[in-house]
Amino acid sequence: MIATLKFTTLLLAVVVCRATQDYGYKDVEEPTLGDSQYGSLWPLPQKVQMSTVAFKLSGVSFQIVDAKESSSGASCSLLQNAYRRYDEYIFPISRMQGQNKKKAFASVSELQVWITSADSECDNYPSVTSDESYELSVDSPVAVLKAPKVWGALRGRGHGFYKSINRTEIQDFPRFTHRGLLLDSSRHFLPIKVILANLEAMAWNKFNVFHWHIVDDPSFPYMSRTFPQLSQQGAYHPYTHVYTPSDVKMIIEFARLRGIRVVSEFDTPGHTQSWGKGQKDLLTPCYSGASPSGSFGPVNPILNTTYDFMAMFFKEVSTVFPDAYIHLGGDEVDFSCWKSNPDIQKFMAQQGFGTDYSKLESFYIQRLLDIVTTTNKGYMIWQEVIDNGVKLKSNTVVHVWMGNKFEEELQKVTEAGFTTILSAPWYLDYISYGQDWQKYYKVEPLSFNGTDAQKKLVVGGEACLWGEYVDATNLTPRLWPRASAVGERLWSDKDVKDTNDAYSRLIQHRCRMVQRGIPAEPLFTGYCAHEYKGV
Amino acid sequence: MIATLKFTTLLLAVVVCRATQDYGYKDVEEPTLGDSQYGSLWPLPQKVQMSTVAFKLSGVSFQIVDAKESSSGASCSLLQNAYRRYDEYIFPISRMQGQNKKKAFASVSELQVWITSADSECDNYPSVTSDESYELSVDSPVAVLKAPKVWGALRGRGHGFYKSINRTEIQDFPRFTHRGLLLDSSRHFLPIKVILANLEAMAWNKFNVFHWHIVDDPSFPYMSRTFPQLSQQGAYHPYTHVYTPSDVKMIIEFARLRGIRVVSEFDTPGHTQSWGKGQKDLLTPCYSGASPSGSFGPVNPILNTTYDFMAMFFKEVSTVFPDAYIHLGGDEVDFSCWKSNPDIQKFMAQQGFGTDYSKLESFYIQRLLDIVTTTNKGYMIWQEVIDNGVKLKSNTVVHVWMGNKFEEELQKVTEAGFTTILSAPWYLDYISYGQDWQKYYKVEPLSFNGTDAQKKLVVGGEACLWGEYVDATNLTPRLWPRASAVGERLWSDKDVKDTNDAYSRLIQHRCRMVQRGIPAEPLFTGYCAHEYKGV
Repeated sequence: MIATLKFTTLLLAVVVCRATQDYGYKDVEEPTLGDSQYGSLWPLPQKVQMSTVAFKLSGVSFQIVDAKESSSGASCSLLQNAYRRYDEYIFPISRMQGQNKKKAFASVSELQVWITSADSECDNYPSVTSDESYELSVDSPVAVLKAPKVWGALRGRGHGFYKSINRTEIQDFPRFTHRGLLLDSSRHFLPIKVILANLEAMAWNKFNVFHWHIVDDPSFPYMSRTFPQLSQQGAYHPYTHVYTPSDVKMIIEFARLRGIRVVSEFDTPGHTQSWGKGQKDLLTPCYSGASPSGSFGPVNPILNTTYDFMAMFFKEVSTVFPDAYIHLGGDEVDFSCWKSNPDIQKFMAQQGFGTDYSKLESFYIQRLLDIVTTTNKGYMIWQEVIDNGVKLKSNTVVHVWMGNKFEEELQKVTEAGFTTILSAPWYLDYISYGQDWQKYYKVEPLSFNGTDAQKKLVVGGEACLWGEYVDATNLTPRLWPRASAVGERLWSDKDVKDTNDAYSRLIQHRCRMVQRGIPAEPLFTGYCAHEYKGV
Repeated sequence: MIATLKFTTLLLAVVVCRATQDYGYKDVEEPTLGDSQYGSLWPLPQKVQMSTVAFKLSGVSFQIVDAKESSSGASCSLLQNAYRRYDEYIFPISRMQGQNKKKAFASVSELQVWITSADSECDNYPSVTSDESYELSVDSPVAVLKAPKVWGALRGRGHGFYKSINRTEIQDFPRFTHRGLLLDSSRHFLPIKVILANLEAMAWNKFNVFHWHIVDDPSFPYMSRTFPQLSQQGAYHPYTHVYTPSDVKMIIEFARLRGIRVVSEFDTPGHTQSWGKGQKDLLTPCYSGASPSGSFGPVNPILNTTYDFMAMFFKEVSTVFPDAYIHLGGDEVDFSCWKSNPDIQKFMAQQGFGTDYSKLESFYIQRLLDIVTTTNKGYMIWQEVIDNGVKLKSNTVVHVWMGNKFEEELQKVTEAGFTTILSAPWYLDYISYGQDWQKYYKVEPLSFNGTDAQKKLVVGGEACLWGEYVDATNLTPRLWPRASAVGERLWSDKDVKDTNDAYSRLIQHRCRMVQRGIPAEPLFTGYCAHEYKGV
């Protein structure tokens, strides 16, 4: 195998304590570094057979082509875009420098891409039911990538071809259909360039959902055509710190070309301080004694204008974001402001809610869900919504985030028959000294008690990078390759859990990301043949 | 003051728990954000009087000039280089866009730089005794920056002028003369570009020592003219991962132009695995029972060839690095290999060392110090050397790094009459969730028990960023603005310790660094007017 490794990293088992002082950091465990029989494959395919027979790629003449039998070809811009990207990854240098004549390998001159299903789905948006399976056969002189749909073709080419490659047979498909990453563009505005770069890195790690936590308390960067004052007043800056409709379109198309869904989150009734700046009477006025204090709480659930606004707003959102799901949030509603407001108190009495404000929360959410249902979208919600007993459509996706005892929550949610995704163990905004990727890697999402039917309801998970401490300056290196660990956990077979083998592959995978221009941070002491060129 | 702030950051005091789960992270304390009366000054000058009278800079016509009385001027390339840099910082946009006519401030059309001492030291290297004091007077139409030496002129201009500026009088000088930053180019190779960018950021934070931990166990990137095989064999790669003599020269000159010393560290006898690859017989062969095991330990202290090598090597180093000090390391010597080696055992017996291997270590260090003394350099050493009772020249600088009870160590070292610098509380390679800059900021280096004379021996400190987990991908955002906290602690008066005031200034200082192209990471939720443009 070692002859085919483009990236090598040297690790020394020397104890280096001056650099670790005496603060108990010494028990950071470094995995043992060996060579994986799977080279630099990440995430590991479901079935892979690698022979020791190595081929070289026919440098100047190598090409990616549509197989004759393929149902999709030159007219499919998704595939043609993908070919161009991968051609650049394969030959960043060799196209210019010509051939390395040293070793007389047999050669691979062509990769044929064969979409086998009559409908390639080339012009579709990816969805939770998209078929991402593929088969890759690398032989001389022709390698063949077969996939029922374009989505599988995208996943198959992710492995990358290098100047030399072993004879390989891969049959692959994802273990979970929802493999997401949450980025938060409210606590810090994330420039388009940063979002696009991370969508690219997501594709290399076979993620297929970008959960765009686009607005929240601190700022409202989403430019709404219906309510332009929301970002005019609620963004950090009305034109440098906003996402225009064309920005959003570009991000969605960039993601689609990589088989990535864009699930937008517009979280209510809490987490809405920034909404209130541009939309009068949307938030609840808090009271200090008998008079308004000047501050505001969650969305005001007792006014009809609130629901009129939500209906118009989510009608727009449902057309701007083509995905079949919208994330509606629903987490962390603070009741203190509601409690202080005499109009709310009166409403509570009228409705017979007593002093149980979770009933008021449910009242709001229920009406919101009814509104969103009219847009024909499905919805995702944070776990509190179900914990509070709101009535949900059967296709609702419940997002489990609370850190403690997530197994119990998964058990409860799936027992109630709901589809669920898991984020609790994958809060990547928490950082610590050392190799925390291992912690993320070791999570088994189906470790909870439940029937097979219940386990099938867990459709995947999401790594979350909340924005308190990240922006364009540090987001990308903080995310990669830590999120890669989650990527493999959600794609590969449940028995793929050898941390040492993963370490060897991940070091190479990380160097591959660096060479392609993503500043993925190092796992430990060592080097990449091609270091990051930025600052 | 607010009118003169170029950078603003919005902070909301909302509790955002979904992003912080329930892992006990909630007790991360956020300082209160107000406006500092000192605007964005960082580090805070010793004496500053700011009036509310604001001037604008005369955009197109504003210039930095040498005062007529100045002893240094157009022929001083150090100053001319500095003028050019600061001109670019002041007018990145306004030179192109013309004037903002809205407010009719009186204007400042000129900054006169006046070097008052007969010898400006323009062509010198900075040293531990360099005079960095300056006085800055901002008035209309002329601002004057007076400094005895060029070093003060560099520090004075660090504050930056913006499109508008208040009438200000500053008298300033550093509390400590040694304000260093350690970077480690052995565990990961740091491209030149990364080192230069961080030297620039150091200057903005009034750091004046780059402690270059250039080689260590994992790799030997220093290209030696006398022993080229050291990097040929010991670097991660013999030409992509090395510092050539011209690279080193460039770094030293780039640092000099910013008043920064480059103190190189060549750590022996431990931490030398990479040395052994290119220099036969330098390291001690370890034994397994009666025969060599094939692995090697610290430098072999019983061979004359070792000292011949060190004499030649440090003779070269002493000419390549102009600074008056070399850091000789001396930390963390592992005795197990020495103990295993029969030749070493025999030598121990001959010398009457018994089984006290620290005597052997001292024997080696003593001879090394004698060798380095012949090069007319002073030396710095890690604290173990003095702990082990090695006889040291009186001008030796002892570097305190051990995390526990650094106050006791400072007391001991200064009681013995040695100059010392502190790093123990400033290991910036340790990361944790939240605002750890406050922890670095709150350290008081002179909090130990000792006489005034002892306290004078503490000449400063260094922030250390060891390289296990950092390279070009993540070094810069991980370092800034966390190191800025150390920068202010070492420059400003001991009574400058209001964390809330510091927070307000640091947020703006961080945005200033971002605007100038350094990806300094955010302190908390918020934004900069000019976000980072990279990925």
